[in-house]
Amino acid sequence: MSLPLIHHRTPQFAAVLGEVQEGLRELFGTKEDVLILAASGTGAMESAVTNLCSPGDEVVFVNGGKFGERWGKLAKTYGLVAHEIPVEWGRAVRPEAIAAALEAHPGTRVVYVQASETSTCVLHPVRAIAELTRARDVLLVVDGITAVGAVDLPMDRLGIDVLVTGSQKGLMLPPGLAFIALSSRAWAAVQRATLPRFYFDLARERKGVAERSTAWTPAISLIQGLRVALEMMRSEGLPNVYARHDRLARATRAGTTAIGLRLLAPDAPSPAGTAVLLPDGVDGSGMFRYLRDRMRVTFAGGQDQLKGKIIRVAHLGYVGSFDIVTGVAALELALRQFGTPVELGRGVGAAEAILAEGLPAR
Amino acid sequence: MSLPLIHHRTPQFAAVLGEVQEGLRELFGTKEDVLILAASGTGAMESAVTNLCSPGDEVVFVNGGKFGERWGKLAKTYGLVAHEIPVEWGRAVRPEAIAAALEAHPGTRVVYVQASETSTCVLHPVRAIAELTRARDVLLVVDGITAVGAVDLPMDRLGIDVLVTGSQKGLMLPPGLAFIALSSRAWAAVQRATLPRFYFDLARERKGVAERSTAWTPAISLIQGLRVALEMMRSEGLPNVYARHDRLARATRAGTTAIGLRLLAPDAPSPAGTAVLLPDGVDGSGMFRYLRDRMRVTFAGGQDQLKGKIIRVAHLGYVGSFDIVTGVAALELALRQFGTPVELGRGVGAAEAILAEGLPAR
Repeated sequence: MSLPLIHHRTPQFAAVLGEVQEGLRELFGTKEDVLILAASGTGAMESAVTNLCSPGDEVVFVNGGKFGERWGKLAKTYGLVAHEIPVEWGRAVRPEAIAAALEAHPGTRVVYVQASETSTCVLHPVRAIAELTRARDVLLVVDGITAVGAVDLPMDRLGIDVLVTGSQKGLMLPPGLAFIALSSRAWAAVQRATLPRFYFDLARERKGVAERSTAWTPAISLIQGLRVALEMMRSEGLPNVYARHDRLARATRAGTTAIGLRLLAPDAPSPAGTAVLLPDGVDGSGMFRYLRDRMRVTFAGGQDQLKGKIIRVAHLGYVGSFDIVTGVAALELALRQFGTPVELGRGVGAAEAILAEGLPAR
Repeated sequence: MSLPLIHHRTPQFAAVLGEVQEGLRELFGTKEDVLILAASGTGAMESAVTNLCSPGDEVVFVNGGKFGERWGKLAKTYGLVAHEIPVEWGRAVRPEAIAAALEAHPGTRVVYVQASETSTCVLHPVRAIAELTRARDVLLVVDGITAVGAVDLPMDRLGIDVLVTGSQKGLMLPPGLAFIALSSRAWAAVQRATLPRFYFDLARERKGVAERSTAWTPAISLIQGLRVALEMMRSEGLPNVYARHDRLARATRAGTTAIGLRLLAPDAPSPAGTAVLLPDGVDGSGMFRYLRDRMRVTFAGGQDQLKGKIIRVAHLGYVGSFDIVTGVAALELALRQFGTPVELGRGVGAAEAILAEGLPAR
């Protein structure tokens, strides 16, 4: 990303775009174009509304956290008739609830869901949901912002119609890029959709891919970094990348529960992050700030009704075993500092027992 | 930009946002908030349509090149009644033409114009246009993408209602950020405007500025770079920055005309770039590629009807005297290579005579 910039309307940059397109297709598990937007993930989410729908269209969305809620806000902004499937924070949506919504609202055109709901660290059952939408004339749009690169979501094979992600999660880059790919049935819907769009006009971006170009000035330095990030993932091997995320997630769960913390989402944990409930009586916001500002270990806190009640441990993207060791050790130390008796090393030991699976042979 | 990323919801990043906000206000010449979007400039242009207008609103736009045309496309996408003021490519709009349009269409709510029309290297008379709109209940939106940082456009003093720019021009950064500031009358219009917007919801971004935050995940590394870029401009001194651009522009015009090239926009040249017409019979596209791929000196070519007919010399942002020397020398050499007799050094000498004005005292 620190290389001198090359102009974006040059054969040199076209070659970069061609190379990253190949890597993105592999990552998304699709033969379709993966469009690169200069925006954060929310921009790509918006494009998945304005490019697929017309005013008054019926859609279903899963609301089990901050990002599920965002689908609802987008649908409302653009005048859709949005049927909400509310899900308790920390739970995954049950596919039966989606089947029931589709029965109750047979005019539904699109289902919007997160793969990994970042605010609760829940993994929704995308595979099962895709079986429902594939069997009907309903599109499935998946926000994969904290899922792509952490868990295998081969969109063509699963029958996901639209998959969205951002640069700053599994792709290990700074924020500033968003990605979106559409199935052929989704592209057919784009032709019919009448909601207005310009900067996020995906048909225009798709034309760009054919010409190894972008509709608007691309975020050149981040795309130069993307080339390297995709090469790192290819070199590690995507199956190994997913296995690493699974291992780090299991180690985090083992380490945090071994010191007596409860998981917010024990039944459907995300490979991207782990949310742990803090013991009653612990000043969660204070401990979060103490960890960040005094111990220099940054976690994410809780949002809205979970503010001060949970700590989220990220293990997504450029993360390895010793980041988990650091995270669990920091929690052990901070808990003790905040008045909860903890046997130091107990959580770390439990995490190590899982992390050992990833050791290379001697 | 190569610093380790800091999380965007931290006091550390809030401090960065506070610092760049101050520098941006100075650059825009406004006491209003300057909003930072993760997008390229077109995204901010779109936001200046969707946040100010309602379907069916009457607007006037100046179309004197690729970017003027874009205002028209945006207006059409969002169902506005857009009155076009067509301007010959290479000419500036006459303020009288705008006055006449406002007379003819008294219901006009907004005038959209470029300060510097990048495709033709023309500087439109924003100051005179602002006098017209200030005297009426009409907002003036200025695309300053290739003007902000190159020419003084103090928005509060001139009475510009909305000023837009991007990161990759006067601000010397990679692309990926867009900026927009609104006057108090523009903010009043935002309250009434009913066009849908979500990612580009400026009221939401404005709330963020007060909290030293952004509505969506910001392009962190570029904003870290922005802090440095603004510091560089402050250290050079904004009046010196504008004087440098003026000097480089005059040197480019002197150098290119001294070797017999004609200017596309002699009457209203932009301080951001200079468009020169290639001699009849010269293979312009071939010469452009020869310069870029064989001589390793990249210019911009012409767009649409000017393709192959002009070469655009950029002198915007991180550019100094010897870039102009290189550019003019490269044109001298390439012209001779493509069959046009040129006295080598003549153009460079004419440029140097102007560049000498910027020499420090011995």
